[in-house]
Order: sequence, then structure tokens, then C-alpha cells
Amino acid sequence: MQNFQAILDEIYIDAKNTIEKGSIASYIPELAHVDKTNFGIHLRTLNGSEYGVGNFETLFSIQSISKVLALSKAMSLIGEAVWKRVDVEPSGHPFNQLALLEIENGIPRNPLINSGAIVIADILLSHLKNPKEDFLNYVRDLAGDDSINYNKSVANSEKVTGFKNYAAANLLKSFNNLENTVDDVLDFYFHQCSIEMSCSQLSKAFLFLANKGGCMKNTAHLTESQAKRINAIMLTCGFYDEAGEFAFEVGLPGKSGVGGGIVALLPDHYIISTWSPGLNKKGNSLLGMQALEQFTTKTKLSIF
Amino acid sequence: MQNFQAILDEIYIDAKNTIEKGSIASYIPELAHVDKTNFGIHLRTLNGSEYGVGNFETLFSIQSISKVLALSKAMSLIGEAVWKRVDVEPSGHPFNQLALLEIENGIPRNPLINSGAIVIADILLSHLKNPKEDFLNYVRDLAGDDSINYNKSVANSEKVTGFKNYAAANLLKSFNNLENTVDDVLDFYFHQCSIEMSCSQLSKAFLFLANKGGCMKNTAHLTESQAKRINAIMLTCGFYDEAGEFAFEVGLPGKSGVGGGIVALLPDHYIISTWSPGLNKKGNSLLGMQALEQFTTKTKLSIF
Amino acid sequence: MQNFQAILDEIYIDAKNTIEKGSIASYIPELAHVDKTNFGIHLRTLNGSEYGVGNFETLFSIQSISKVLALSKAMSLIGEAVWKRVDVEPSGHPFNQLALLEIENGIPRNPLINSGAIVIADILLSHLKNPKEDFLNYVRDLAGDDSINYNKSVANSEKVTGFKNYAAANLLKSFNNLENTVDDVLDFYFHQCSIEMSCSQLSKAFLFLANKGGCMKNTAHLTESQAKRINAIMLTCGFYDEAGEFAFEVGLPGKSGVGGGIVALLPDHYIISTWSPGLNKKGNSLLGMQALEQFTTKTKLSIF
Amino acid sequence: MQNFQAILDEIYIDAKNTIEKGSIASYIPELAHVDKTNFGIHLRTLNGSEYGVGNFETLFSIQSISKVLALSKAMSLIGEAVWKRVDVEPSGHPFNQLALLEIENGIPRNPLINSGAIVIADILLSHLKNPKEDFLNYVRDLAGDDSINYNKSVANSEKVTGFKNYAAANLLKSFNNLENTVDDVLDFYFHQCSIEMSCSQLSKAFLFLANKGGCMKNTAHLTESQAKRINAIMLTCGFYDEAGEFAFEVGLPGKSGVGGGIVALLPDHYIISTWSPGLNKKGNSLLGMQALEQFTTKTKLSIF
Repeated sequence: MQNFQAILDEIYIDAKNTIEKGSIASYIPELAHVDKTNFGIHLRTLNGSEYGVGNFETLFSIQSISKVLALSKAMSLIGEAVWKRVDVEPSGHPFNQLALLEIENGIPRNPLINSGAIVIADILLSHLKNPKEDFLNYVRDLAGDDSINYNKSVANSEKVTGFKNYAAANLLKSFNNLENTVDDVLDFYFHQCSIEMSCSQLSKAFLFLANKGGCMKNTAHLTESQAKRINAIMLTCGFYDEAGEFAFEVGLPGKSGVGGGIVALLPDHYIISTWSPGLNKKGNSLLGMQALEQFTTKTKLSIF
Repeated sequence: MQNFQAILDEIYIDAKNTIEKGSIASYIPELAHVDKTNFGIHLRTLNGSEYGVGNFETLFSIQSISKVLALSKAMSLIGEAVWKRVDVEPSGHPFNQLALLEIENGIPRNPLINSGAIVIADILLSHLKNPKEDFLNYVRDLAGDDSINYNKSVANSEKVTGFKNYAAANLLKSFNNLENTVDDVLDFYFHQCSIEMSCSQLSKAFLFLANKGGCMKNTAHLTESQAKRINAIMLTCGFYDEAGEFAFEVGLPGKSGVGGGIVALLPDHYIISTWSPGLNKKGNSLLGMQALEQFTTKTKLSIF
Repeated sequence: MQNFQAILDEIYIDAKNTIEKGSIASYIPELAHVDKTNFGIHLRTLNGSEYGVGNFETLFSIQSISKVLALSKAMSLIGEAVWKRVDVEPSGHPFNQLALLEIENGIPRNPLINSGAIVIADILLSHLKNPKEDFLNYVRDLAGDDSINYNKSVANSEKVTGFKNYAAANLLKSFNNLENTVDDVLDFYFHQCSIEMSCSQLSKAFLFLANKGGCMKNTAHLTESQAKRINAIMLTCGFYDEAGEFAFEVGLPGKSGVGGGIVALLPDHYIISTWSPGLNKKGNSLLGMQALEQFTTKTKLSIF
Repeated sequence: MQNFQAILDEIYIDAKNTIEKGSIASYIPELAHVDKTNFGIHLRTLNGSEYGVGNFETLFSIQSISKVLALSKAMSLIGEAVWKRVDVEPSGHPFNQLALLEIENGIPRNPLINSGAIVIADILLSHLKNPKEDFLNYVRDLAGDDSINYNKSVANSEKVTGFKNYAAANLLKSFNNLENTVDDVLDFYFHQCSIEMSCSQLSKAFLFLANKGGCMKNTAHLTESQAKRINAIMLTCGFYDEAGEFAFEVGLPGKSGVGGGIVALLPDHYIISTWSPGLNKKGNSLLGMQALEQFTTKTKLSIF
């Protein structure tokens, strides 16, 4: 049995001593004011143990991490039909996102790039009775915490600046790959991304993916096969242009968000969540990447 | 001196005898109901003679032909500053319009593709006091005809179906190449495209481009150099993916619209306008292209 | 302890009963004559047990599977310097391989696509004394079998038909990313791809990647970190345009070849090799993909 | 009647006074040693008058200008069949030349980009009895000068450095758009580009394109329609990424070469040739562009 707390403590000290902390994402104005010195890690093992260090109870904007939860909900609602509208292959470059959509006739490459996540949001909008309320309840239920909420000023901030997302959504619409209006879909999508959670809440919420689809209360949220598919997608597509690098450096399925959060997991073993708002050049949390690389190196607990 | 009327009459008979008439553009619902058997030509020489055949007095939706008039107005307002926001090179493929915008950081390849025309619309919106009214008056003035008007139901039809234009406009906005809101710019742009004119009105309105920038009343609307530039752009960029083919087959600067109209001109000599709503596979009027090819072959009056 | 032999036998029967067997690759003339009914699987566990069924001892052309062994040799020779000349991210589409090279200034996206493998071949050519002999000995040594050899007629067959590889190599050369001549590099590369091995030989040869870099004789061929990196690259890049699908369906790092072979492995547990020459539309062995999917489903032994 | 000699003299003085002279093309080593201060213009009118200034009798490497003559010869040999193997539309960007070839299945966008010119060279190789000798005689005959010759050291220089051309030719071959071997086609192509001519020889050789297809001796080398097509292609495709700019600034069909030469013409009026080896950023002669812009501005003799 490894001493996980000691390992997290070591990583924490290293992070605190790292001078280069990356840059705060500036394109979402509401996120630009977060303090760059924040740093937290939380680890939850499948046998129920928990370990935390630093700001692991502080709320932050989960942003793209929400795409995994939205995908899970969509799969639980319509199953394999999801794959008629979005593919499962890694995307190429960030600069040609819309180019890919055009060439591939409006079918996004995977559900974790923005265009794919917008399609997933459209699916949720069509199949949930009270979309925003129902999705929030789904997340609260997974995390076992009813205090989780949207940050409406962050959601609104994206509405007035998220032109690339409007471009992508309109392009999807032109290919008949959105059932709802662009405005409705993006309103839902921006809310979904604005959810605020802490590292410890995220570790709880993602437990079902390390647990063959079943959550803490052993309710089956997804089939084992669905959970496996989501893990595979996180590994190949979860880190934008840095997916290959993350697969090597860390060796875990995971997902990052522009708010500085990362969740990663080793199936059947553990979930680990980190938060540090400074991003590297590829848009992933600089200290979070470093922390996860150290964790799997020190523990030798990765999939490879 | 050639017998222009006899030549137009021959072309008219050939067009009427052509069984394949192309397809009506279906993506603008309001345009889908036009009768495909319409066909008109109108010729105006610089010495003031006019010749017409068929439906040359019937109004139709000028659509993209309006881009040339919008560009002219923009150049008369801000001159060379236009070229800071849009390039003058032929675009590549239609399928990668947005891709090009992404790669080239939001600078459209030329003012006659949709993204470029949207930037021009933004310029007009910023520099005209009452944009829609002022632009309409500019067109009326050029054509010497105050009955010319917008077709509001066509403009509104595009508003609810023009998702690709919304995608392009949002992408331009994300690159800071729109000063006004996406909705305001596209509202103006869809109105501009919805203008209805006849072949004979178009021949009058485009006279200044064959006349070194001066209109019928000899008012200078553009400098000679500006008129020359617009003609050069029409020749290299006026026919989407068929610009090279048109340059060879017809050998005139010109511009087509999805409503089935085409205007072309030989500097210092004449302006010729055609209308036939059936389009070929590349989106240009099938009988119009045929008519113009026959006209320059029969008269030997082209730029090459 | 699972009954692996029984599982392989079941998979074999299913494969034999599958009517659709895919298409033989026709672009390498020498490979076009292989009998499509061939089918073999071989499993080797880290504790030394072996299981086989069907044509698991028959030699076939390993083709792109060789890229993994070439990469391993290159990493053992120059270590991290490999990554100055080739990236580690999944590629996008097959149709724009050369486009990607142009956009990315001659740095291939990863060492398992052709352009990347050609760069690796160039590295071996520069650093091995007798490149073809030395590389063959490396493979023989890993597999513990001196009978392994090149098939010179297959190698020559590619020389006179492999125009896309010549195009890629010349493009790399134009970006100064080849040290040797195009002809020398491709001569080595085509020989490397022409190596013939059986499923059981491949399982032996790939053991070091499941064994933290150490081979059967416990000689360290790679560091544990290097072995982990190669496994990560196989998972994200090993199956062309089907990498995401393979990650989900099978959930193992692996590599396919156009000769119909696939090798996959679960670190610390086992190596499994399949051979069936009929390919699916994406160029991977149809029955091999099916067999591996069944194997990880039946045994529940995958990384996810 | 304008005083052409006085105009050329003015342009010459301006060119000599221009400090920025551009950069010599360095990728063809043999061309790197030319003196940047060379500058010549030669004008020939259809009535037979000639005017020259500066180094208008000095030989230089015509390079891509030869593509127009090769295209003319190919059209005289197989007529419209040329267009089955190459398109006539402007290309997009220089950086994605090979990308376009891949997307468009090996059909080059036009015969004046390298890939298109390589296809034309393949046609000549297939249809000429003694290709190099016959093509040279064709050029000599057009120019009425048997002293014109290949520069074999320039041709060989390209053979050992022209990797992008080898890449393009191999890609064409992979799409079955070359009948001869890559080496044979490029050997011919590099010879074709290595022809050395002076401005005055070029003006003579291009006369047939301004003269409805007939040369000085009134032998018909092309039909009027073929001459018109080549002029149209030069206007839309003759200046790489600067075709639109040249159409506006100069307003003539023309073709530039990396050796610093440009030929342009006004149908039925004149041919003008310039040479100055310093290139602008887009690869066209800096002083040549300036000279031609001044010439059409001063004389008002352009197609627009």
C-alpha cells in the first residue's frame, strides 16, 4: 500500500516551488480574475479513501470537463444513437476545427472538441424535460452534493464573446446536425460549462467512470461498455492538441478545462482531480499536468 | 458596326431551344418558386445604345451581384483602407471557405466571396448614416431609377436559413474583423442581396465600371483606378469556382448571383446583363453563361 | 485463471464462420496473392505461457507493424532526440497526410504514419553501421529467431509502385528532415516493411513493450519510460483513422499492418498477435479487429 | 501615337533609382550568382515596332515563363485533351499545393503551377519524337532565333535540389496522372525551365499569343480560341499568390519566372518583357512588377 497523502504533499511542494505557473485564459472575461497561485489536488480510490492537498475544496469553473458529464448523460439517454451525429476519432489541429467540420459534412470528430460538445448539448436539449435543471441535478447526483450550481455571470460572459462557438454551431446547423436553435443550444452549452465544482466534488462525480459505470451508491449510470468507451475517448481526445503527450506523460484517461481543472482516472483504481488556473501554451493547466505526471511516475499506477 | 440586336435575337432563340436549363437555387426558400423558363438579355453600349430581348425588364433577386455595388460604395467611402480588412486574391474551393478564413486569421480572400462581402457590409454599416436607406439610394442613383427596392421577405428568408453566413460572420467577429454585431451586419447584408432589379436596370447601374468610374450623368462615383481594380477583381473572383472557366469562355469581368443574374462588361465598350434562374453545378446561371459565351464569340468583343 | 486456449478457439470458430472477410490490399502487387482464408492468433503471457490457434505459425508480411520495432531501435540509439524530428500526436485524415507535412513544416505528426516512419528509417540509416543487416539482427534478437528475413521481392515491388512514399520522402527532404538520400531511405524503409514473421514470432518480439522495456532474456532494450511512451503512441496513433475506434473496441495499445497482421498488448500481462489478410475499409485486418475485440470482451483484460 | 521609348526610359530611371531591389532566388544554386542590378525592358507592338532599354538583350533563365510555351505546344499537339488532366482555375495558397493535389485526386488546378506544368511536360514527353530537341526547336522557331539553348548546369542544379517537384511528380504518379517515369518527366521539365532568353527574344516568342495564335511569319501556331484561353489562364493564374494583385496593378495577362523575368501582353496591341533578378516576397520580380505597373498606368493600355 502506497502512502498517497505523502505523495500528494510532495507534489504540492513542488508545485508551490515552480515559478512558471502559466497564463490565465483571457478569452472568458469572468475567468480572468482568478488567483494564479491556487493549487489543489484530490484523490479518491475505489475503496473509498480520499486524500487532498491545497485548494482541493475551492470551487472553480469546470468548463470543458463538463463535456464528459454531458456525454455520459447523452449516452444514458439515447445510447449508441449518439454516434450517428459525432465521431470518436482524435481531431487534428486546433486551427482547422471548422475546416474539419466542413470537410466532414458537419459531423464533429469527437464529443470532446467544442463542435462535438455542442452536438451533445443539442441532444440533451432535445431529450431532457427541463434541460438546465435536469442536467444540474444529474451532476449533483453524481457528486452527491446539492450545492453545486451554474455560474450565470460566466455563462453570460461567454454568450457575448464566444463567437467561435457561434460559428461552429451555425455551421453544424447548416449541415442539419442541430435540432434546436443555435441560441438555445449555446445557452445550454455555456451554462453547462459554467458549472463550478471543487477537486473533491469532481473526484466523486467521475467515480462511475472508474467503476464500470456505477456511482457511489452503486446505481448504474452507464453500462460497463459505455464507461469504457468514454474512458477511451478521454484518452485519445481529452487534451486538445496535447492528447498524445498526455497519454505518454501521464498515461491516464482524463479531461482538462480552460478554468484550470483536470480530472483523470485509472479504471478500477482511482480518480484524481487537480486545479491550478495557469495554462500552458496548448491550453491545459500547467501545474495540473506536472502534478499528474509526477503522480503516475511516483505511484507507477497508469494504464501503460 | 455590328448588328447587336440580331445577335441577341439569335442567342435568345438558342437559349429557348436549350432543353437543359439548370436547377433553381433551393437554399433560399423565397427564390425556389421562380419560373425556370425566364430568360432575358440587355446590352448597353457606352455611346448610349440599348438592346434587349426576352424578360429583360423583369425584376429578379440580384443576390451576389450586389456585392460589386457594395464594394464600390465602400471604396468611395474609405478608399484603400478597404484592403486592410479583405484581400484581392482568388479563393480556392467552395468547401473550405471557413477553413481559409481560419488559416488566414479572419482576412477574407476577396470581397466577392461571402465572408469578404460580409466585411464590406460591416464597413458600410459603420460609415453610412442610414445604412439600408443610403445604400438603396446609391443603387437607385446609379441605375437612375427610384423604383428599385429591397424584397423584405427574401431578406427575412435568408435570416432564418443562412446558417453558413452566420458561421462566417461569427468567425470574422472572433478575429475582430467586424465592428458591428453579427446580427446587424447580416441584417444589412441580407437586405443588400435581396434587391430586385431587371437586366436593363443592372446594365445602367454597372455603367460606371465600364466608364472609368463615371456614371451616366458623368458624376464620378469612383476614380479610374478604383474602377479598374473592381473590374480586375470581378475577372479573377466573380464566378466562385468557375472564375477561370468564365475568363476563358467569356473573357469579360463580371459577377453572377444565385438568383440567376449575371452582369459583365467590356471597359470602354459595353455592359451586358442576363437573367435565367436555372443554375449550373457551380452555381452560375446556365443559360446566362451560354449567352455570354455566344455574345463574345459572335462579336469578338472581349478583353483577350 | 482464465482458460485462454478455449477463448482463442471460440474466436477462431467465429472468424471461420464470418462470411465477410474484407479485401486484400492491392497496391502492393506482391501481397495481392495471399489466401484470404488465412487466420491465426497467438497469445503470450508475461509468465511465459503461449496459446495459438489457426495459422499462427505462418509467415506474413508485417509491413507497418515494423514501424514500432524501428521506432524502438531509434529510441535505443538516440533517445529523446527522436522527438526533434517527429511529433507524438494523432494525425488527422489519411487524405491530407502531405498537407499536414506542408503545414507543419516537414515534422510528421507521429512515428507510426508513413512520413514519420520514413524519418525514423532515416535515423536508423544514419546510426547503424550496416543498416539492413543490423536492423534485421535486432528483430531476430527480440524474437529469438534467426530465420526471420526480408522478402526482397516485396521490397522491390514497393520500390516501383510506392509513389506516395516517394512524394512524402521528397517533401521531408525539401524541409531538411532527411539526412540521407530519398532513394537510400526508402530502400531501407521498404526492406523494413517487407520483413516476414508469424504471429508467434511477433508475440515474442513485442514482449519487451509489455515488460517495461526488457526482453525475454531480460536484456533491457528500452527504459521503462521509453516502453511506456511507445505504448502510448500505439494507443493514440497505431490504427490510422481508426485509432479512436480501436481504443474503444479493443482497449489495448497495438499496431496493424497492411499485410493483415495486428499486434496488441496489455502492459505487465500479455501480447496478442493476429493475422488475417482481408482488410476493412480503413485498412486494418477485418477479422483481426473482430478477434481482438472479442478477446478483450471475453477476458475483460484491457487498459480501460 | 505614344512615345513608347520615352516611357521605357522614364521607367528605367525610376528602376535604377529604386533602392530596394528584392532578393535573388536562392533555392536554385546556379541562379544565386546573378547580379541584382540587371534591369531590362523590351516592348514589341503588333505592327512590328520594337523598343528596348537596359539589359534587354542579356540572356537569363526563363524558368516558369517556359510553362506558357510548353502549354502552347501541348495544346497544338493534343488540343482540348489537355483539360482532362489539368484544370483551369486559380490555385489557392502556395503552402498547400500538394494538399490541393491530394484533395483533387491528382488533377492540378492549372497548368501554370508546378504540378500542372509537370503534367504538361509529361504530355510533351509522350507526344514529341525527340522531346528536348523538338521543344527547343519550337521555342527557337517562335522567337526566330536558333541561338536559344538550355543551360544544362541549371537543369542539373534543379535535379539535385528540386525535392518539392519530385514530391509533386510522385504524387501525380500515384494518381496515375503521369504516363512517363518521374525521372524522365522531371529531366524534361528542368531542361524546359533552364532555357535562357533575353527580353527581346521573349517578346518575339510570345507574339503569337497577342496575335490570335499566329506568329511573326503568320504561321498559325494555335487557333484564336486557344490563344485566348492561354491569355485567360495567364491573367487568372500567372502570378502565383499575386495573380489578383497583378491583374489590378498591371491589368495584363502575363507570366513571371523565378529568374526575374516577366512577359505580359495586350491582345492585338503589344508584348512587353522585363528582367530584373531581385524578387519580392511572393516570388515575382520586384522591379519588373513596378515597371509593368508604370507602363500600363502611363500608357493607359491595359485590358481593364
